[in-house]
Amino acid sequence: MAQKKMILDLDTGIDDALAIAYAVADTNVELIGIISSYGNTYVETSAQNSLNLLHLLGVDDVPVFIGEQHSSTTDHFDVMPISQLIHGKNGIGEVELSQSPRLVEKQSGIDFLIEAAHKYTDDLIFIPTGPLTNLAAAIEKDPTVATLIGHTTLMGGALTVPGNVTPFTEANIHQDPEAADIVFQKQTNLTMVGLDVTLRTLLTKQETAQWRALGTTAGEKFAELMDFYIDAYFNLNIDKKGAALHDPLAVAVGIDASYVTTIPLTMHVTYDQETGDYGRTIGDKEKLLQPTTSQAAVLVDTDRFVSDFQQLMLNVLA
Amino acid sequence: MAQKKMILDLDTGIDDALAIAYAVADTNVELIGIISSYGNTYVETSAQNSLNLLHLLGVDDVPVFIGEQHSSTTDHFDVMPISQLIHGKNGIGEVELSQSPRLVEKQSGIDFLIEAAHKYTDDLIFIPTGPLTNLAAAIEKDPTVATLIGHTTLMGGALTVPGNVTPFTEANIHQDPEAADIVFQKQTNLTMVGLDVTLRTLLTKQETAQWRALGTTAGEKFAELMDFYIDAYFNLNIDKKGAALHDPLAVAVGIDASYVTTIPLTMHVTYDQETGDYGRTIGDKEKLLQPTTSQAAVLVDTDRFVSDFQQLMLNVLA
Repeated sequence: MAQKKMILDLDTGIDDALAIAYAVADTNVELIGIISSYGNTYVETSAQNSLNLLHLLGVDDVPVFIGEQHSSTTDHFDVMPISQLIHGKNGIGEVELSQSPRLVEKQSGIDFLIEAAHKYTDDLIFIPTGPLTNLAAAIEKDPTVATLIGHTTLMGGALTVPGNVTPFTEANIHQDPEAADIVFQKQTNLTMVGLDVTLRTLLTKQETAQWRALGTTAGEKFAELMDFYIDAYFNLNIDKKGAALHDPLAVAVGIDASYVTTIPLTMHVTYDQETGDYGRTIGDKEKLLQPTTSQAAVLVDTDRFVSDFQQLMLNVLA
Repeated sequence: MAQKKMILDLDTGIDDALAIAYAVADTNVELIGIISSYGNTYVETSAQNSLNLLHLLGVDDVPVFIGEQHSSTTDHFDVMPISQLIHGKNGIGEVELSQSPRLVEKQSGIDFLIEAAHKYTDDLIFIPTGPLTNLAAAIEKDPTVATLIGHTTLMGGALTVPGNVTPFTEANIHQDPEAADIVFQKQTNLTMVGLDVTLRTLLTKQETAQWRALGTTAGEKFAELMDFYIDAYFNLNIDKKGAALHDPLAVAVGIDASYVTTIPLTMHVTYDQETGDYGRTIGDKEKLLQPTTSQAAVLVDTDRFVSDFQQLMLNVLA
């Protein structure tokens, strides 16, 4: 089997940093580029964080592209205070990283995605772990993207559990529900990895202590940023034992779907401000009896995933 | 394996009538009683419908008990106009049935359930297909009921799809969310068979034509009431092709869980009138990493179930 190509679409972000490490570590895929998004931080900060993290991991050959700066329905984006508390003001837990010698690409992230969709088609795995603004923009610019990309596995949404912004909406979807709705309605071969499964994963300071014990700069820096995240989870009363592996789980599922149990379900996203359920990801009742290529992950093999994740991290940070 | 005992808790109701037929037809269980609930119709009408349907099916030995007349938080119940449109004013599609020679029992449905829970424990399958008022009342009167009943498979709720009363709530849960919340929080070995799966089943006039073709009174009457239901679905724009097999699916899953794919999930029911999601059945985020005996059905083997259902119906109506 030929090695699949992977593109990440990240608002980097601490768990986005783990997604990068996972994609670099897993030899089943070739990471061919990272598109930057706003979300946990601003799009430029996110892009620079991605470049610096790739440099830290010794992979300066992966290009980073700038995506949309704000949602499809606004002309401006401000980082939410809660995002700064969870990810730090610099997006990566106030950890200082060496500046990458590489610069962000001149080509836009949207154009890069469209080009790659046409070039790699079925061999392309696309993993958005932030707002779905970039993918929706690509579909709008070139509707064939919706069917060309081999598989899209997104981190976002909440189907069987409440959201983390309101009881109805998860943070990535909440940033741009209109864009998310376009993606859910149009993108084929789509798997949603939402809070339903990511909240069933947990990383603790036991694992980060092992990263630090490697004695490498990468081990030390990743332990530092993940500990910031675990502390934030503790201080904000999100979880007292550890922190969820949101974004790396989406990467893992993109590579090996057997980590999760999915149900075939065509979903849509509500964005009526009046009904109170703004940004809810929910099954489309009208389409329950129709065939679909959309899947929602509802269960995860937690032990296997956390164990494999930790092994890959120990490899890539060594 | 000893034959399991089954108690139905019905607001009879057209699809409740199908649930009775299914429970009578499946020789893997012995139907030991029906508790009556308000919901699709009034509790007394529901009880008399159950008695008359049992009589029609030739099983006058099954006792019918009266349950609560209204929700746990009201002192009164009125049938919703939409219920009358779907189930008819008499609850069974305006079909006239011969009066059963049997009368409703003097013992209350709540006391019957408590007694049976103690008597049969693990061998008892309990199937509520209406509001959860009776089960919550039993738990309140005797908290051991929550752990004594072998398995409870309820028809109600909506987890991965919107509700059928509001975008958040399904009709059975909506009648008494507080009672439902008690059940979801306390009842062990609980399986929710909600709109997620029941809306993936569909019975059409092709099947009811086969019932009618049997040339029996039971075949004719059941075809008549189910056609009323299918017509209501058509006229109310719920489904143009047929009608969902809500209640009989719960009976089938209670007997053979392999009809559905379930996820382990501790759920609760929201009932704050302020938040707009009154009556929502949703996973409890705090308990995602804890062991649970609660399951939510998220996928159904539609073809196998509809085919088995039809075969049992043809047997019992012959």
